Amino acid sequence: MRDRGLSEEEVMRGLLKMRAKDLSYDRIFSSMCTPPHPIALKAHQLFQETNLGDPGLFPGSAELEAEAVRMMAELLGHPEACGYLSTGGTESNIQAIRAARNSADFRDGNIVVPRSAHFSFDKIGDLLSLEIRKADLDGDLKVEVGSVEELIDEKTVSLVGIAGTTEFGQVDPIDRLGRLALDWGIPLHVDAAFGGFVLPFLGGDWRWDFSVEGVTSITIDPHKMGMATIPGGGLLFRHPEDLERLAAYAPYLTVARPKALTGTRSGAAAAAIWAVMSHLGMEGFKEVVNGCMALSRRMASGAKEIGIEPVIEPVMNVVTLRMEDPEGVRAALLGRRWRVSTTRSPKALRLIMMPHSTAENVDLFLGDLEDVLRKKA
Amino acid sequence: MRDRGLSEEEVMRGLLKMRAKDLSYDRIFSSMCTPPHPIALKAHQLFQETNLGDPGLFPGSAELEAEAVRMMAELLGHPEACGYLSTGGTESNIQAIRAARNSADFRDGNIVVPRSAHFSFDKIGDLLSLEIRKADLDGDLKVEVGSVEELIDEKTVSLVGIAGTTEFGQVDPIDRLGRLALDWGIPLHVDAAFGGFVLPFLGGDWRWDFSVEGVTSITIDPHKMGMATIPGGGLLFRHPEDLERLAAYAPYLTVARPKALTGTRSGAAAAAIWAVMSHLGMEGFKEVVNGCMALSRRMASGAKEIGIEPVIEPVMNVVTLRMEDPEGVRAALLGRRWRVSTTRSPKALRLIMMPHSTAENVDLFLGDLEDVLRKKA
Repeated sequence: MRDRGLSEEEVMRGLLKMRAKDLSYDRIFSSMCTPPHPIALKAHQLFQETNLGDPGLFPGSAELEAEAVRMMAELLGHPEACGYLSTGGTESNIQAIRAARNSADFRDGNIVVPRSAHFSFDKIGDLLSLEIRKADLDGDLKVEVGSVEELIDEKTVSLVGIAGTTEFGQVDPIDRLGRLALDWGIPLHVDAAFGGFVLPFLGGDWRWDFSVEGVTSITIDPHKMGMATIPGGGLLFRHPEDLERLAAYAPYLTVARPKALTGTRSGAAAAAIWAVMSHLGMEGFKEVVNGCMALSRRMASGAKEIGIEPVIEPVMNVVTLRMEDPEGVRAALLGRRWRVSTTRSPKALRLIMMPHSTAENVDLFLGDLEDVLRKKA
Repeated sequence: MRDRGLSEEEVMRGLLKMRAKDLSYDRIFSSMCTPPHPIALKAHQLFQETNLGDPGLFPGSAELEAEAVRMMAELLGHPEACGYLSTGGTESNIQAIRAARNSADFRDGNIVVPRSAHFSFDKIGDLLSLEIRKADLDGDLKVEVGSVEELIDEKTVSLVGIAGTTEFGQVDPIDRLGRLALDWGIPLHVDAAFGGFVLPFLGGDWRWDFSVEGVTSITIDPHKMGMATIPGGGLLFRHPEDLERLAAYAPYLTVARPKALTGTRSGAAAAAIWAVMSHLGMEGFKEVVNGCMALSRRMASGAKEIGIEPVIEPVMNVVTLRMEDPEGVRAALLGRRWRVSTTRSPKALRLIMMPHSTAENVDLFLGDLEDVLRKKA
């Protein structure tokens, strides 16, 4: 650190220079994040200095957190669900699995996750000293319930199902996993980090949330499709005693038994979540999700027209296009300022249609994709 | 969640109503947080939408993180130290201990912490399945090195020293702990969540950072005395291989081996940290810390004048006042709109002099404290 600081003008110049190196979202098809809704930005700014870790000092912020949790509980089919706002999907998954692990009276347990689970589950296995058993997927890239059952044993502390897989946007058969969980008396955690703010607005008869009896906890990420600010995560439990297993004792704070993994926590992010959910309502979110789904269908059918098949018909706003050399195509598209990602098994180009995506960019992108593939052929 | 959303005006009205319930910081003596520096707010806003979890999309934000880490490494006496910006002290402590645990080839280990360690270490013990052994304190509330040594055995994966204890603002004898760590070949983690942005600016010949040979990692919290925004934490390692033990594999992101505990991470908080450190420099921080120390001395000597003794002479900007019934006094002061906290052993009123504290409020507070004590007597 320098002895004498830079002037405010110099600092702002430095910041603007760095900000110019960051990409703008419009040509990004690789991210599950999106620019926050304008009302999220306003809310965030207003609550910038508040700390949810000390709710006695910030009862207004704490009330916004409680209301946001309540709205999410309703959204997820169980208004009585309890929980808190986390830093994001990884913390939520850690804490859900930790609560499940701590309900067992042994510490050498395992959890059974789909092979399609987010990479954070490997981190969780390391952190919590649990064996991560990966169940096979079927041809549609949903978890095979039979494979899950084969992996369960007396040391299994939780099953995990995914509602919106990171790579393919697929939804596991949560209702069948729920029956399995009840049969074995094991908690079932649903990772809906991405799907939580998509599936409730899709219509259709999805059965993946607390309406499935065996589901004991759900991860949902407002800072993805919820258009809130980072760090905006959510974790909900069906049973208050599971949340209670996460309680710590903090004598000098205004909260006796904090449940979050972190100590100091952003009140600003809570305000942003509350603001977007209150402002959009079910109708507003339906509109956002319908828009992303229309673009997903446009992308998938445009790809078919140039001879590329999607791995699965888009279930959510994730489009994966099967090809021999997705890495090469990704690199060529990067030269044309498109950001896409890839999947490994099966090999595909991965494109996420987010609220920042536009029909114009989908069409421009498809033109460039056709061109890149022709040049490679 | 309601079907039809509220208008923008209704949402803003709701937010302002809640914000009015939150306290303003000026009469808060119980918090280690403070309103962010104005330049932190500007920086945060400018980078609100960026995600450090995907640095290929946000190379400018990633550069700010790297520069902030480098500045902290210099501040902590080892410019080559490596690390990352975390969500705060708890994440940093978790990750430091996780790296230490993972360097051992067994999983039933223990760590030795001072009895004065932050409550997050109990959380860490649960999370990482480590036994937390608590060493005794001496009369000055520093850890007794002899007690630490007695608790070490072949399963000890880390020692922990505190540079700025949460309750009393005391600094453990890190140099002696460092020698112990070297003798036993065990990592020594220093929790300087609060002290990291205080001790370097105090003058004097403190030996507590990477200049002590045995220190392998340090937690430092810009969102406390660093006047940055939440979530602004820091974790530094002396050896790159320790940071590497935290790496995960994320195939679809633009970063191959992310080290943070969380996935999506606030670029805004990184920009805020960079901005405050660049703007204040060593001189600016010295001024801030000198101001807080002057208020601490004013509070301690004012208390003596009304017949109350500090538990220890203020080492940092934490003043603890010994009394019979701190809880009763705290409650009475709450009626006069002062927020203070208490300690248990020894029993004291705990007051933190932060950048938002003023001489005027210290004097007003002392008047109210005298009054409250007289009425109780």
